[in-house]
Amino acid sequence: MEANRVYNFNPGPAVQPLEVLKEAQSEFLNFAGTGESIIEISHRAKEFEKVLNDAKADIKELMGLGDDYEVLFLQGGASLQFAMIPANFATEEHKGAYVISGSFAEKAYKEAKVLEVGTIAGSSKDDDFRHVPTQDEIKVPQDAAYLHVCYNNTIYGTEYHYIPETGNVPLVADMSSDMLSRPIDFKKFTFIYAGAQKNLGPAGVVVVVAKKSFLEKSPTDIPTIMRYSTHLEKNSLYNTPPAFCIYMVGKTAAWLKKQGGLAAMAERNAKKSKLLYDVIDNSNGFYRGHASKESRSFMNVTFRLPSEELEKKFVDEAKAIDLCGVKGHRSVGGMRASIYNAMPIEGVEKLADFMEKFKKANA
Amino acid sequence: MEANRVYNFNPGPAVQPLEVLKEAQSEFLNFAGTGESIIEISHRAKEFEKVLNDAKADIKELMGLGDDYEVLFLQGGASLQFAMIPANFATEEHKGAYVISGSFAEKAYKEAKVLEVGTIAGSSKDDDFRHVPTQDEIKVPQDAAYLHVCYNNTIYGTEYHYIPETGNVPLVADMSSDMLSRPIDFKKFTFIYAGAQKNLGPAGVVVVVAKKSFLEKSPTDIPTIMRYSTHLEKNSLYNTPPAFCIYMVGKTAAWLKKQGGLAAMAERNAKKSKLLYDVIDNSNGFYRGHASKESRSFMNVTFRLPSEELEKKFVDEAKAIDLCGVKGHRSVGGMRASIYNAMPIEGVEKLADFMEKFKKANA
Repeated sequence: MEANRVYNFNPGPAVQPLEVLKEAQSEFLNFAGTGESIIEISHRAKEFEKVLNDAKADIKELMGLGDDYEVLFLQGGASLQFAMIPANFATEEHKGAYVISGSFAEKAYKEAKVLEVGTIAGSSKDDDFRHVPTQDEIKVPQDAAYLHVCYNNTIYGTEYHYIPETGNVPLVADMSSDMLSRPIDFKKFTFIYAGAQKNLGPAGVVVVVAKKSFLEKSPTDIPTIMRYSTHLEKNSLYNTPPAFCIYMVGKTAAWLKKQGGLAAMAERNAKKSKLLYDVIDNSNGFYRGHASKESRSFMNVTFRLPSEELEKKFVDEAKAIDLCGVKGHRSVGGMRASIYNAMPIEGVEKLADFMEKFKKANA
Repeated sequence: MEANRVYNFNPGPAVQPLEVLKEAQSEFLNFAGTGESIIEISHRAKEFEKVLNDAKADIKELMGLGDDYEVLFLQGGASLQFAMIPANFATEEHKGAYVISGSFAEKAYKEAKVLEVGTIAGSSKDDDFRHVPTQDEIKVPQDAAYLHVCYNNTIYGTEYHYIPETGNVPLVADMSSDMLSRPIDFKKFTFIYAGAQKNLGPAGVVVVVAKKSFLEKSPTDIPTIMRYSTHLEKNSLYNTPPAFCIYMVGKTAAWLKKQGGLAAMAERNAKKSKLLYDVIDNSNGFYRGHASKESRSFMNVTFRLPSEELEKKFVDEAKAIDLCGVKGHRSVGGMRASIYNAMPIEGVEKLADFMEKFKKANA
């Protein structure tokens, strides 16, 4: 570990690749020989245009997508997407259908409900969101405008390990916490979005990757800035973009390519998560995972301890050895270790080792 | 001038204070002893909460505002505010009234029109936006939900030098390009907003300063994230905020306080703009200012040259001596020197000197 740095297991904002941080730091006063900081240069400058277009190209290359897909960089986080998606695509006749697999999936559905264009296609709420609904648990209305899924549920530590079949209904996915963490057949999705602050960069930009044909036809009775067609036509430069965030996403995508792309990431992330799940599974019930095994997330490992007192002790002792941000979300309780792309394996090894020792000392 | 840096006259994103950039750079890998970058720390961490609350307090202190006002940090730029303001405050019975003083004022009005809740209260379009409408040119409907003005018109180089009287109608102002550049009786405004990327920090955050009582009552049939009440209740932490941008705005506000606050800024900005306006006024018509004298902006100095050929030559020769970004907006043509708070007087002196020499060589 770098001097003065900690292992940061926060769910987002989250750990970023140290090489990327250092590169950004070194050129912060003078970007690409412009004599200006990346936060000072015009968003119409050719140097910034290159940043934006390179980031788009790298993301599409990593995802294996072609010219029929477009990458947009928008503001407002996934939360604004929750509103924009139904406003752009759903109607009272052709509702947006939602699979409720956790809090954020539910938030997305609620925004469709505000506009009276949402319906539920499946839910695992009765199971306390321990698993993502199976194909059998999802009923896709064939007149739906889309089927919306939340592909990784950060709070509950669950993740889809299959791509829902939807017939002719476009598949829309919130991949805020697992985009670019492993190869997925992204072509089966019509619209993917992700708040950057987990695997992609700093908070303040949301990355949309979607079929151009889907983005082209926005209604004109919604605000101009809420129409996907606006951003498609203007290459994400309809208004001043969050330039620094886009720049960091670009650097992160380039870093991912250097690491070997999504296949290499998947291997590393599988290894990292296995380290922690193995400790849980071999703890004789000292650690109890929240997620059902078949839905376990590669990104967020959630578990409880025998008592809340021990959970507090765990958090404190972990922090004392620079393992930070392991406290779980209040709605699940216990622990959550978020181990996104940028979390080095050494950090996870250190946490797994700490978990073993903590169990021995407290079981 | 710092080695390898240029004087950046871009309209936004724009020059930022060098001290602020250096401070951010130095702590980029380890913010406030957390062992994490400011882009990595949790938005729920006490260290970030302090950043946000200090930024709010400093902005209110600079503006001389008390507890009846709230500061919000939102995403989507002024463009999303154009949509949120009418959606939150206007109705068909109580329309939003708009003064059209330039392109962005007009864009704001158009978004109210999309929702069918906008009306025009005055315009200087017939004058090619050379002046901001006078009090006499503004007719405030007394049943209006608000009167919206764009306080500085970046493209045209005009700025209000008076505060419109509105009777009982709340005054709403887009101050994207002049907020915190001079003392104004901000208490006369009910709602002020500014995209950060001119005087306040990086693109990616919009700062709203408004009366709490005005923000409290948002309609519930618009998306949750578009309701001001949502952000008021959650202290701008309803969803993950653009943390880096807020952090930079906070640093910039602290820097402004150290410089002597808005009175000191006003003095400096008046001096800077006078340098350029004097060259224009004493050029025997070689330089022709776009703005009428009584509406001249302290922030954006716009002027034409005798021919487009000379204008191109001016831009090229300026750039060759590190005076960058002086090309005007295409809708006005010619030159625009944006001289926000962070532009040092030396940069403006160098530009004024260049203008004199260029005139002598080409008149």
